[in-house]
Amino acid sequence: METLAKNRSFGGVQSVYKHRSEACGCDMTFAVYLPPQADLRPVPVLWFLSGLTCTHDNAMTKGGFQEHAAKHGIAVVFPDTSPRGDGVADDDAYDLGQGAGFYVNARRDPWKPHFRMYDYIVTELRGIVQGMDGIGTAHGITGHSMGGHGALTIAMRNPDMFDSLSAFAPIANPTRSDWGRKQFSAYLGDDEGCWAGHDSTLLLEERGWKGDMLIDQGTSDQFLDLLKPEALAQTMAAKRQPGAFRMQAGYDHSYFFVNSFAGDHVAWHAARLT
Amino acid sequence: METLAKNRSFGGVQSVYKHRSEACGCDMTFAVYLPPQADLRPVPVLWFLSGLTCTHDNAMTKGGFQEHAAKHGIAVVFPDTSPRGDGVADDDAYDLGQGAGFYVNARRDPWKPHFRMYDYIVTELRGIVQGMDGIGTAHGITGHSMGGHGALTIAMRNPDMFDSLSAFAPIANPTRSDWGRKQFSAYLGDDEGCWAGHDSTLLLEERGWKGDMLIDQGTSDQFLDLLKPEALAQTMAAKRQPGAFRMQAGYDHSYFFVNSFAGDHVAWHAARLT
Repeated sequence: METLAKNRSFGGVQSVYKHRSEACGCDMTFAVYLPPQADLRPVPVLWFLSGLTCTHDNAMTKGGFQEHAAKHGIAVVFPDTSPRGDGVADDDAYDLGQGAGFYVNARRDPWKPHFRMYDYIVTELRGIVQGMDGIGTAHGITGHSMGGHGALTIAMRNPDMFDSLSAFAPIANPTRSDWGRKQFSAYLGDDEGCWAGHDSTLLLEERGWKGDMLIDQGTSDQFLDLLKPEALAQTMAAKRQPGAFRMQAGYDHSYFFVNSFAGDHVAWHAARLT
Repeated sequence: METLAKNRSFGGVQSVYKHRSEACGCDMTFAVYLPPQADLRPVPVLWFLSGLTCTHDNAMTKGGFQEHAAKHGIAVVFPDTSPRGDGVADDDAYDLGQGAGFYVNARRDPWKPHFRMYDYIVTELRGIVQGMDGIGTAHGITGHSMGGHGALTIAMRNPDMFDSLSAFAPIANPTRSDWGRKQFSAYLGDDEGCWAGHDSTLLLEERGWKGDMLIDQGTSDQFLDLLKPEALAQTMAAKRQPGAFRMQAGYDHSYFFVNSFAGDHVAWHAARLT
């Protein structure tokens, strides 16, 4: 594993690594923030899954998580959002191919050989992170937009792996949205039965989540029609799922929104992981 | 004046504007963060001057100032670092021309017609900001690297305009550094006498600063040889200038450093402006 960068941040260290991924069959880049407390003892870790077009870098530099992670003594992992490289399939659209992995394992060509972001996050990168100095055994997961979809679906499919869950403006009902149907059709094929396992509203309906969950959604989000927060909010209430679904007045879909509530989410996870 | 963006952030509004600059003879872009308190009453304003290669955007998205500005109820202005555009002189080097205005008024061609960042900040943009709804009469100034140089020199030359002063890793003694001699020679000409008015160490020696000042500098900064913090620190002590010069262990020159201490600087200014 190659270290691409190390920067001191709020008394801890923000690192960026590159490694050869078996799951994705290409080099992958990810970032880890270790708070100062990790010098003394293993700390809990929060996974932040990013949205369409993002790499590990966007949330690392614009999310403002380090300050809160240092305050609460938890690590934060920022994975990339897809396989990348010249040999990896892509599409001209911003919402398919590189930068748009949707946290699934593709079953169809040309995506099948590399687009295995589900296995990459759940198995390969999980193993790498667990082996790092300073990383403890308690894991929480969150994410933004496509990454909020990833966080919710991965957590509900793997409740033994995560002890806390939240999301920022998640793609909440992708089987009924153009942010979902297009990609699931391309990556997974036409059998909509297998799409359901990657739709947080349907998973919540079917399986629920073992703990409480925190969802933040801006009321001025320019993508509300694609995100479909009402589907998840309705299911959460109907299923009596503990948690908070907050509609935040005036916020849009940008990192200014993520940044504004990063502190709340880190505190939420820290309270459940420490 | 054209509004390029408005995003809600920590209960306030982060805006980006474009306007025709008389001082620079080109379109200029700047950003203003207004905290929620500005809806109720005019608030103090902190100017953040950015470093080499930056635009208004870098500190706005990576500095983390909004959270602290909202907490303390102060506005933050993020100007660009130079004139820009096809008709504006430039140089292949990253540290001369566009992105490297050095907060002076150029006296030599090809820079003279547009590179008037001193007048732009002190007079033109100052006037625009003062005319904005929600902006009060108390102003503080800070900056990073070349912008730290700008903040220190502009404040010491204009003590009636600013009531608080700080800097992050400033270019502290440009008349004796390759970050300074090259640019002053190009913009100002060979008369080193007129360079002295743009060197914070020399200005501190000659004029001092009316209040106290806060300087943060990382001990692992990759540009220590160019920044010359020892010159400013020595002069500050020798002149009995009130303030704090903090060498921060392990921090480099990046925005991870700026971000880590943004809260301290906003609190410093807020305590002196409110």
